[in-house]
Amino acid sequence: MIDGNGNSTSYSQKQELLLTNARIVTMVSGSQGYLVSQPTDLYVKAGKLHALPNQLPADTPIYDCKYKLVTPGFIDCHTHLVYAGNRANEFEMRLNGMPYSEIARQGGGILATVKATRAATQNELVEYALPRLDGLIRSGVTTVEIKSGYGLTLKDEIKMLRAAKALQDRRKVNVVTTLLAAHAVPPEYQGKSDDYIRLICEEIIPMVAEERLASSVDVFCESIGFNLQQTEKVFITAKQYGLNVKGHTEQLSNLGGTALTAKYKGLSADHIEYLDGEGVSALANSDTVATLLPGAFYFLKETQLPPIKLLRQRKIPMAIATDVNPGTSPFSDLTMMMNMSCTLFGLTPEEALRGVTCHAAKALGLAKVKGQIQHGFDADLAIWDVEHPADFSYQQGIARLTARVVNGEVEHV
Amino acid sequence: MIDGNGNSTSYSQKQELLLTNARIVTMVSGSQGYLVSQPTDLYVKAGKLHALPNQLPADTPIYDCKYKLVTPGFIDCHTHLVYAGNRANEFEMRLNGMPYSEIARQGGGILATVKATRAATQNELVEYALPRLDGLIRSGVTTVEIKSGYGLTLKDEIKMLRAAKALQDRRKVNVVTTLLAAHAVPPEYQGKSDDYIRLICEEIIPMVAEERLASSVDVFCESIGFNLQQTEKVFITAKQYGLNVKGHTEQLSNLGGTALTAKYKGLSADHIEYLDGEGVSALANSDTVATLLPGAFYFLKETQLPPIKLLRQRKIPMAIATDVNPGTSPFSDLTMMMNMSCTLFGLTPEEALRGVTCHAAKALGLAKVKGQIQHGFDADLAIWDVEHPADFSYQQGIARLTARVVNGEVEHV
Ligand SMILES: [Zn+2]
Ligand SMILES: [Zn+2]
Repeated sequence: MIDGNGNSTSYSQKQELLLTNARIVTMVSGSQGYLVSQPTDLYVKAGKLHALPNQLPADTPIYDCKYKLVTPGFIDCHTHLVYAGNRANEFEMRLNGMPYSEIARQGGGILATVKATRAATQNELVEYALPRLDGLIRSGVTTVEIKSGYGLTLKDEIKMLRAAKALQDRRKVNVVTTLLAAHAVPPEYQGKSDDYIRLICEEIIPMVAEERLASSVDVFCESIGFNLQQTEKVFITAKQYGLNVKGHTEQLSNLGGTALTAKYKGLSADHIEYLDGEGVSALANSDTVATLLPGAFYFLKETQLPPIKLLRQRKIPMAIATDVNPGTSPFSDLTMMMNMSCTLFGLTPEEALRGVTCHAAKALGLAKVKGQIQHGFDADLAIWDVEHPADFSYQQGIARLTARVVNGEVEHV
Repeated sequence: MIDGNGNSTSYSQKQELLLTNARIVTMVSGSQGYLVSQPTDLYVKAGKLHALPNQLPADTPIYDCKYKLVTPGFIDCHTHLVYAGNRANEFEMRLNGMPYSEIARQGGGILATVKATRAATQNELVEYALPRLDGLIRSGVTTVEIKSGYGLTLKDEIKMLRAAKALQDRRKVNVVTTLLAAHAVPPEYQGKSDDYIRLICEEIIPMVAEERLASSVDVFCESIGFNLQQTEKVFITAKQYGLNVKGHTEQLSNLGGTALTAKYKGLSADHIEYLDGEGVSALANSDTVATLLPGAFYFLKETQLPPIKLLRQRKIPMAIATDVNPGTSPFSDLTMMMNMSCTLFGLTPEEALRGVTCHAAKALGLAKVKGQIQHGFDADLAIWDVEHPADFSYQQGIARLTARVVNGEVEHV
């Protein structure tokens, strides 16, 4: 038997595990899901949660949760975690009063990250991403979505996706990859964005689909990104290749990208500060999740709030993610984003917790297997020194995570 | 020899220490102080930084900084770290739409913390504070100011100050204590705040001075705290007992508390969102530091910005602190506050770094001994996996601290 404090042996060879004395927050649908249970046992077999069998084998390993709080492992459903370079210098230039145009002239902005990412090897990208991934892991993350989008060539987009997947060999975590070749028009296609869309549709998507390097395709649908027509072209191609779609939509203006994403049964429409009533209706009539990225809202000093009340009224599931990226959200801490979603957007702590569990799972097409503590679901859990789940959204900066369980394997902090 | 990765032996018995290959940011006055030096050596003797002697004893312990960045240890100059209870429930009620009046009627607000703190023992207060202190330590803090102010009786204020000091026995950190009996009118003095001020001046300050439990006395000068006259009475008494003064001033309205603090040669005027030009002039003509608390600004969704441009113009030193407290700033992370000071207040990363080093030292009356890497200063350092100091204010959530040096003793993360 291994207790909540001890040096655990690896459970990786074990097919079974009994977690005892867990105060669980299941996050199943309905208000019950947010209530803290009486101390209970959780039974894991082959990486899945199962009902406790009538008789347990005598040698079943036991992990005593010691009345700590147990939640589904947190899911960060929107990140740009893999990239090279550091744009602290640009942040500093901006605060010293340099206009963005001058920073761009000096090679700053997203193209600085593209240049550094293209120059890096796959292994270097993995190394650079690890401290950021470790930050997310410390905030209870067991599943992270990672997008490409700083390569912007066939070779470099594929290198980014492979680096993202390779992070799973370095840390106990589930990585879900998304192709975001349509993140920005690469320098060599300036003024020829339609040609770049053609490259994406004719070469990059087919190769990524064939090599199963991503499960979804994302587009930055914005005046400084790609227009509705281009976005639709990418969505149609992705669907033809059996990939899911999702969008960076209505972040800076209201182009209708969210409705387009909903029309193509997108998994999520992300950012959506400028979403109007019509866009909300489109979401309401779809299965598309509204993903909120309060870190980018905060960092960009945005003042236009996403239409939270309307989303709530129409019962549209809201996910919360870090958006970890060097330009607009250099934050590798998911509970800080929960606090920002409450403080800046007015979400309740329950909505924030659903935003990083069941609703984040849905934003990744994993609603039936992750994000809830339920029989048949993946045994991805987080075990916390926390009295009540409202605390995740409230206090920040203190270490509350005791252990994570990823696919049935326990890892202590 | 002990290197930057190895298991260090304790240096505590050693009087000397040589740190090699340090890229240092000295934070001495002038723009030079923010520049990163070429790799250099730092020599420590009896807890102080000294010029390298011509000849070192052969057995001088060496710590190889391996070209990491070395800054003065960070100083958090305004916290309410010691308290009992948890107000996550209140945070949740508020976000579920309950008006503050109803929360107060149910015993919420600061009086909830007062009740819990009065009920706790000194040892319990230490235990409750440790996770928050550890959060600050992870963000590079080697000196922390801790205020009383949730006891509001002679006995309980003293218990809080003793708990604050006792934290030094549990962690390698310097604690500076401040008496803030004038934080709120205690329930048993409702409508009799002058009587409570008399208790502070006639009993609490004398006892605290006699037992050397605090070096400063602070007042919450605000319509919901204490008026100017009451504040002045406390300041006069504190001065009579040889204690420094400082104020929570101009946080919610412009009462003139900052000018009063400057008049009494206060160490710092803190919050100051509502400070006007006259108040800034009062600071400019004094040695009083302007302490900014962006976490409280953020958490309270304040929209009135402190007069940063004017403070900068008048060359008033600005400190940055966490204000860690359960009501308005539940954040135990000083670099997050640096980011907020840049993002929300427009400080430069250099100003933010001065705000947690040399200027924070000045806000505690320690300008001549802490907050800079200089001969004769205390050997309080932080050693970081950071390329450039702008990064402290930029990325958040990643673990960058490698080790701290506190009074000449090294502690690895
Ligand atoms: Zn994004
Ligand atoms: Zn305060």
